[in-house]
Amino acid sequence: MAKDKGPRRPRAETPKGFRDYFGAEVSERKAMLDTIAEVYHRYGFDPLETSAVETVEALGKFLPDVDRPNEGVFAWQDEDQDWLALRYDLTAPLARVAAQYRNDLPTPYRRYAMGPVWRNEKPGPGRFRQFYQCDADTVGSGSVAADAEICAMLADALEEVGIPRGDYVVRVNNRKVLNGVLQAIFGYLEGNEDAQLGAAHDTATKRDAVLRTIDKFDKVGESGVRELLGKGRLDASGAYIDGVGLDEGQTDRVIAFLTSRGATTFDTLANLRGAVGDSHIGAEGVSELEQIAALLDAQGYGPDRIVIDPSVVRGLGYYTGPVYEAELTFEILDEKGRKRQFGSVAGGGRYDDLVKRFTGQSVPATGVSIGVDRLLAALRAKGRVQGDGRGPVVVTVMDRDRMADYQAMATDLRRAGIRAEVYLGNPKNFGNQLKYADKRNSPVAIIQGGDEAARGVVQVKDLYLGAKIAAEASHEEWRAQPAQTEVARADLVAEVRRILGQG
Amino acid sequence: MAKDKGPRRPRAETPKGFRDYFGAEVSERKAMLDTIAEVYHRYGFDPLETSAVETVEALGKFLPDVDRPNEGVFAWQDEDQDWLALRYDLTAPLARVAAQYRNDLPTPYRRYAMGPVWRNEKPGPGRFRQFYQCDADTVGSGSVAADAEICAMLADALEEVGIPRGDYVVRVNNRKVLNGVLQAIFGYLEGNEDAQLGAAHDTATKRDAVLRTIDKFDKVGESGVRELLGKGRLDASGAYIDGVGLDEGQTDRVIAFLTSRGATTFDTLANLRGAVGDSHIGAEGVSELEQIAALLDAQGYGPDRIVIDPSVVRGLGYYTGPVYEAELTFEILDEKGRKRQFGSVAGGGRYDDLVKRFTGQSVPATGVSIGVDRLLAALRAKGRVQGDGRGPVVVTVMDRDRMADYQAMATDLRRAGIRAEVYLGNPKNFGNQLKYADKRNSPVAIIQGGDEAARGVVQVKDLYLGAKIAAEASHEEWRAQPAQTEVARADLVAEVRRILGQG
Repeated sequence: MAKDKGPRRPRAETPKGFRDYFGAEVSERKAMLDTIAEVYHRYGFDPLETSAVETVEALGKFLPDVDRPNEGVFAWQDEDQDWLALRYDLTAPLARVAAQYRNDLPTPYRRYAMGPVWRNEKPGPGRFRQFYQCDADTVGSGSVAADAEICAMLADALEEVGIPRGDYVVRVNNRKVLNGVLQAIFGYLEGNEDAQLGAAHDTATKRDAVLRTIDKFDKVGESGVRELLGKGRLDASGAYIDGVGLDEGQTDRVIAFLTSRGATTFDTLANLRGAVGDSHIGAEGVSELEQIAALLDAQGYGPDRIVIDPSVVRGLGYYTGPVYEAELTFEILDEKGRKRQFGSVAGGGRYDDLVKRFTGQSVPATGVSIGVDRLLAALRAKGRVQGDGRGPVVVTVMDRDRMADYQAMATDLRRAGIRAEVYLGNPKNFGNQLKYADKRNSPVAIIQGGDEAARGVVQVKDLYLGAKIAAEASHEEWRAQPAQTEVARADLVAEVRRILGQG
Repeated sequence: MAKDKGPRRPRAETPKGFRDYFGAEVSERKAMLDTIAEVYHRYGFDPLETSAVETVEALGKFLPDVDRPNEGVFAWQDEDQDWLALRYDLTAPLARVAAQYRNDLPTPYRRYAMGPVWRNEKPGPGRFRQFYQCDADTVGSGSVAADAEICAMLADALEEVGIPRGDYVVRVNNRKVLNGVLQAIFGYLEGNEDAQLGAAHDTATKRDAVLRTIDKFDKVGESGVRELLGKGRLDASGAYIDGVGLDEGQTDRVIAFLTSRGATTFDTLANLRGAVGDSHIGAEGVSELEQIAALLDAQGYGPDRIVIDPSVVRGLGYYTGPVYEAELTFEILDEKGRKRQFGSVAGGGRYDDLVKRFTGQSVPATGVSIGVDRLLAALRAKGRVQGDGRGPVVVTVMDRDRMADYQAMATDLRRAGIRAEVYLGNPKNFGNQLKYADKRNSPVAIIQGGDEAARGVVQVKDLYLGAKIAAEASHEEWRAQPAQTEVARADLVAEVRRILGQG
């Protein structure tokens, strides 16, 4: 027989893959994003806040990164049977806005957006289904000055949030240069009316294989790429990976492209010109990089901050022109205690057809996305987070009937701009009040019993110093309690200021 | 036969009931919320950011306002068949957090939260399915000092965002006083073992009817409530509304409660003591109001800012103790051009059983919610919005080949803290560049053609002054173009500063 059960209590849990952010976690991220927003604003970018919910139709399957081609969205049907979904990035909503308001927005339209996005994918360690993105895009400008501007803005943003010059580099590449290299190898596919269809198909397949191989450059290095482009390669697990089957001359061109970074921008551009041969699109790509370098140079951004670097391959498959990536070059220890470079914290580039899905008209665009959690982790690693993690001054309650006096103390402190509160739990156990102050990371506790009230004084306890003494001092020193001073009630604010270093 | 159609283009539209926020709309709201957050932080409140998505189970049907009892949520099933939903307010997630982290959070836990919430309800004019809420709550304190503190904090927040003292009032009432009035009328229901069940049921029905009638006080006034509590009333449409059937003595008590606000707090409290008669719970309610008034007085918040006012009925049905509401008292013109008070922009109170759903344990809590869109509308009505709606200085492009020079000008301006950008659209038509600057609400345009470049000068055009002259000046004056000055390239920043009033 079924046993009669009472109603089950709901579980107090976030859904799988979601999390909450408390106190300093919230304020540190906010301080970082506020600083970035200030930089973006100074560059003429306007904030845009789209709704979290889009029609699935408007969202499409449009992800700005080849690494994640078909991630799921959280979707549901509304009462009209239309499918709605949570945005999975900030680029798809920008595309919708650029199309919806195309007659009202300025052209070009510079906008930044910051906010959560949602991905319906398997959660894992450090991998959440809701996370922040921070994007800046220029829609409607085909000029490489737009790309150069975003690189400069990115460098400024990194420095202003607290990454010192020398600890980061923005690396710039161009998809057109790669296209030129491919043309130099395979000849022109487009517009080549004479090409036999079969041969063209074969070449297209090989081009894709070359692109996939280039993407592995970061992992397998020059020799690995050389093997994979040629006859093939034994991978780490002992399996044999078939090669693309390029001849040595073709392989040399790809390698020349990937390793073309020279000692100076001038050298790099010369190497690239060699790699693209007589390809028209390749020459255009090199010329664009040259213009970007010249624009940045005129603005004072030398190769110590922004550098032309053809080894940037991430995103090359997706973007159509300039591609850029910000890398943090200082070292951190990984989980296994080994030193490694912190790595990439932002990336972007030029992409076409942002709006074309909606209107049929091509609109050029370029933009960058900062990895909010990555950059915040970097700032924490460098001890450069902004935001005050300090708790409030806690006015303790010795005498429940004199709550108004205690509140007046907190009010005086707040009027002086000092974060302060009265303990509002059960005041019976004084130890609990100090434990509470400890949990809040409070710098100071205020104490006033009946005796002190009668004498018009308060005890001011320096909790940070107190903790230090408790950890380091002998029993005798501890009992002397130098971390606690008695001052006149009228001097309360001044004494707290002194302890907080605001004296 | 079916006609062959090409793939339909997606519509570039927000879903029904959702909207986008552009530029100043975003920054003005952000500035307001940042200011409120600063006040809350100063009072010792910590930020909390929960995920937008909750399990439907955790969300429950828990709305902090009787006006909207059972609004729908946006919900869907995840891959494990669990139902997930977008949060419909910030209180339900707080309840979940308070239960989930009850062993880790400080007690009391003061937190504020700001962010969007979602309601699956019929959209209407000015009624959206995603909107901002801004809440502050103290969980785990039963002390009325917690209620008083939130009232003071609310007053501070209103003043700091730009509502002058005198233009707002925080009104405080207490549900316990109303309970006392009801007890005085109907006698004790709870614990009255002798009462016949039928009579008790009849009384409970009458109590509910009295509560519903009290809610109409704002609309129908004293005489209306008197009729509705007694024999009944003809409403505006001519329909007869049955009365509750109280006798005159009972009705007098309710009216005495609703109209008990006196010239001073002392008078109000005396009137309330009369209205609750010998009800124990009523006396407790009056005593709590007395304590709140004393605490606020000690902190310098007089009845010009925070006042005990028993005519606050909104939310009385939902809350269990003190109830508070912030009202803006200045007048605005409504849609029909009639003067009316701006009205309520925030409300809150004490509620129990926040956490009980999850843990079975009662946890006292009190909190306030600011109507973000309402308060922002009030600031706009008063011309007090923060945030700079001014567009960037636009450096125009006369000569496409000298883009680096133009970028260097923008860089110089930014280094001086001035918002600036180079025009990055097609530079062919100069008129379009000025139209663009106009659309961006730019204060200044910079112009340098080949001739000026050769002479080492730039033209600096004051666009605000130019627009004024165009609107007011004669043709001759207009041609004299006093809004445009030529300065040495080296003086560019100084001249722009002068125009922007930063000289």
